[in-house]
Amino acid sequence: MKKIAVVGAGLVGSLQAILLAQKGYHVSVFERRPDLRKATLIGGKSINLALSDRGWKALEIAGIAEDIRQIAIPMYNRCMHALDGTLTYQPYGVNNEAIYSVSRGGLNQKLMNLADNYPNIEYFFDRKCLDVNLKTNTLSFQNEQTKELEQFESDKIFATDGAYSAVRMRMQKSMTFNYSQKYLDHGYKELVIPANADGSHKLDKNCLHIWPRGEFMMIALANLDGSFTCTLFFPMEGETSFETLKTREQVAAFFDKTFPDAVGMMPTLLDDYFENPTSSLIMVRCEPWNYKDNIVLLGDAAHAIVPFYGQGMNCGFEDCTVFNEMYDESKGDWTGLLSRFSDQRVPDANAILDLALDNYVEMRDKTADPEFLLQKKIEGKFSRLHPDKWTPLYSQVTFSNTRYSDALKNGRKQDALMQEILKIENIHEKWDEPFVMDKMLELIS
Amino acid sequence: MKKIAVVGAGLVGSLQAILLAQKGYHVSVFERRPDLRKATLIGGKSINLALSDRGWKALEIAGIAEDIRQIAIPMYNRCMHALDGTLTYQPYGVNNEAIYSVSRGGLNQKLMNLADNYPNIEYFFDRKCLDVNLKTNTLSFQNEQTKELEQFESDKIFATDGAYSAVRMRMQKSMTFNYSQKYLDHGYKELVIPANADGSHKLDKNCLHIWPRGEFMMIALANLDGSFTCTLFFPMEGETSFETLKTREQVAAFFDKTFPDAVGMMPTLLDDYFENPTSSLIMVRCEPWNYKDNIVLLGDAAHAIVPFYGQGMNCGFEDCTVFNEMYDESKGDWTGLLSRFSDQRVPDANAILDLALDNYVEMRDKTADPEFLLQKKIEGKFSRLHPDKWTPLYSQVTFSNTRYSDALKNGRKQDALMQEILKIENIHEKWDEPFVMDKMLELIS
Repeated sequence: MKKIAVVGAGLVGSLQAILLAQKGYHVSVFERRPDLRKATLIGGKSINLALSDRGWKALEIAGIAEDIRQIAIPMYNRCMHALDGTLTYQPYGVNNEAIYSVSRGGLNQKLMNLADNYPNIEYFFDRKCLDVNLKTNTLSFQNEQTKELEQFESDKIFATDGAYSAVRMRMQKSMTFNYSQKYLDHGYKELVIPANADGSHKLDKNCLHIWPRGEFMMIALANLDGSFTCTLFFPMEGETSFETLKTREQVAAFFDKTFPDAVGMMPTLLDDYFENPTSSLIMVRCEPWNYKDNIVLLGDAAHAIVPFYGQGMNCGFEDCTVFNEMYDESKGDWTGLLSRFSDQRVPDANAILDLALDNYVEMRDKTADPEFLLQKKIEGKFSRLHPDKWTPLYSQVTFSNTRYSDALKNGRKQDALMQEILKIENIHEKWDEPFVMDKMLELIS
Repeated sequence: MKKIAVVGAGLVGSLQAILLAQKGYHVSVFERRPDLRKATLIGGKSINLALSDRGWKALEIAGIAEDIRQIAIPMYNRCMHALDGTLTYQPYGVNNEAIYSVSRGGLNQKLMNLADNYPNIEYFFDRKCLDVNLKTNTLSFQNEQTKELEQFESDKIFATDGAYSAVRMRMQKSMTFNYSQKYLDHGYKELVIPANADGSHKLDKNCLHIWPRGEFMMIALANLDGSFTCTLFFPMEGETSFETLKTREQVAAFFDKTFPDAVGMMPTLLDDYFENPTSSLIMVRCEPWNYKDNIVLLGDAAHAIVPFYGQGMNCGFEDCTVFNEMYDESKGDWTGLLSRFSDQRVPDANAILDLALDNYVEMRDKTADPEFLLQKKIEGKFSRLHPDKWTPLYSQVTFSNTRYSDALKNGRKQDALMQEILKIENIHEKWDEPFVMDKMLELIS
């Protein structure tokens, strides 16, 4: 039986371990941190995820989807909070689809527990990856408990060790490896809206709440305990930024002015603001994801993206799905498999990063723009009339398994077409007239 | 006296050590390799450089320009070798300017010898940089002779350790650092045209010889001993590539067909081809180049570029010039100096990489294109008539100290203008008529 090492016991690593174990491999999973099932969670880092179709598909393959549905809260709408407190609801799907708020920690624990059912999966915690010998496929770890150096030789290595992957760093130094890392000018900070005294939610829990404010935004996702995890996405530097909001007075004044309908629901705002870290957002692109037939990067290690499409985990899980399919197609022959996998997935990972960057502008800025809302209204109408001719980009990304690279192309085409439609004179008044739909039909063919 | 560490004793490191010593600092230079003045040169890696104005300026500041002129061979023209053996000469400058073929090793030795004149410069060879402690500004080296670990604490660190910089790698892991590395699809291999029996050159030594062949090219630069160093720039993979030229028969047939006028002058071609390594070409962009007021990247460590504009070393030397000027302006106050230096230089380094990529296409492809040669003829005429209105892009880059970023912008504007001129009907016949110059005057204002 072939020995496989998985570096990183996060979501993608644990899922991939299960899928490999199901194929009969002996899988050793190495994780830098202690077993998160025994540790207390470190707060202050955003741990809410929005599960959507690509993620569910992989969870179904692993046989865990039903368990997760029990701890997932469906969100059917974006709920936009205007400065004057007006709420605008925008459905995510055209067929009442939802994205699902889940806790990263809860999902990871479930995956680990499921992995424990496989006698051919072994977890090794407190193992910090120091190096990889590419010639012998040997990993070096520091055992954080004993401080001793440990070596592990395996036939294949799956590196799922995240945006700051140690395995990828080794590949970057040792082979013809195209790599880029770029930090967003904006960072984020986690805040909280606690539950009501009776445990109920202070806002509609079945919405993803957005306070779009042009150059920045706050969002809130519901937790099972009645609270909301809020995340402020905000410039790191500049006139209005993490750098300039320095005192409790400045922060209080800023929130009073900018998020007036939220501030009353955030009793621990000032403590949270100064206790929770300001985190940065890194974007990683690289190619190839494999080293020969031996090592492959999956998940954030291969493609760290920004969180604005809710696709980071979904994309990582889709890596597992795609690998699984390609492995089955090759009937378990590894020759060239990792290289073909890399060729297949790189354009999709690049596309979802581009889409997520676009969506940041959309969420923080355009969702408050009447022209944009009109465009969405027209698109929605057309899509309902001609569902075979128009799948909204958001649905392609979130509620389908269309390749991200195809979705990106389709979206660009749709947007060019809508720019034509918006040029129609008095479109704000005439948008609901039949000739607009006819014009779209004409443009689309 | 402040202690400064320079990591890397190459061209830029040695020059910067001298400039810092002249300011009164105690400078320790650490080099991974043995002292190249005591070692035999490793062949097979292209070691010919084309010195031009930016490089000379820095050498003049260091007081070594005259020494180097003794070992530099001026090249006034590009000499294009067509498939049928036709030679076409194209002057590099409009005022008989030249670029200068020099040996990297010779230049480096001269710089080290000059550095030895300063009692406040110390060289430490065989020191491989393993790590940098950013908090204490302490470098860790492995002494390659004793195999012992050595630590060195300093006030400032100048990292001139090249395209695979160890210091930069540390910065990449530890701070908000935007970074990209990308490999060109083309690699290179060094070959040789030996001297005649009487020590004379087999080709005009005052030209840079180019065999442009569309998707690839060969170039040759003269050495003092009568030989030419040839470099074949060639796809790494694909139909016609390093990958597919596998046997002596294939290589011989390829050269006979592709470089018929050169092959007779290359008696050791087949041995050289198989003995010399195939090298890859890495491009590095990053930002910022500094870590606080303590560490700064210079030269290839900050901006590894492709060699097609002959500006790699010239750009690195200009880093030294610009730092020198900014240091003088700040009157030796380091507060914010490295950050301002980074802000100033990053756009110029990005621009010269873009220019060098453009020039690769120009050298291997356009220099054999009649339309391109016509464009250059018209530009040359206009530039001679109106030297105040038109400095050719090549001259801006090579024979001036215009910021690379400005040269890039100017070049793009010139090119757009020339596209208009080339649209004139029958321009191939009419290009020398006065109305063409009038039209250019009109377009330029």
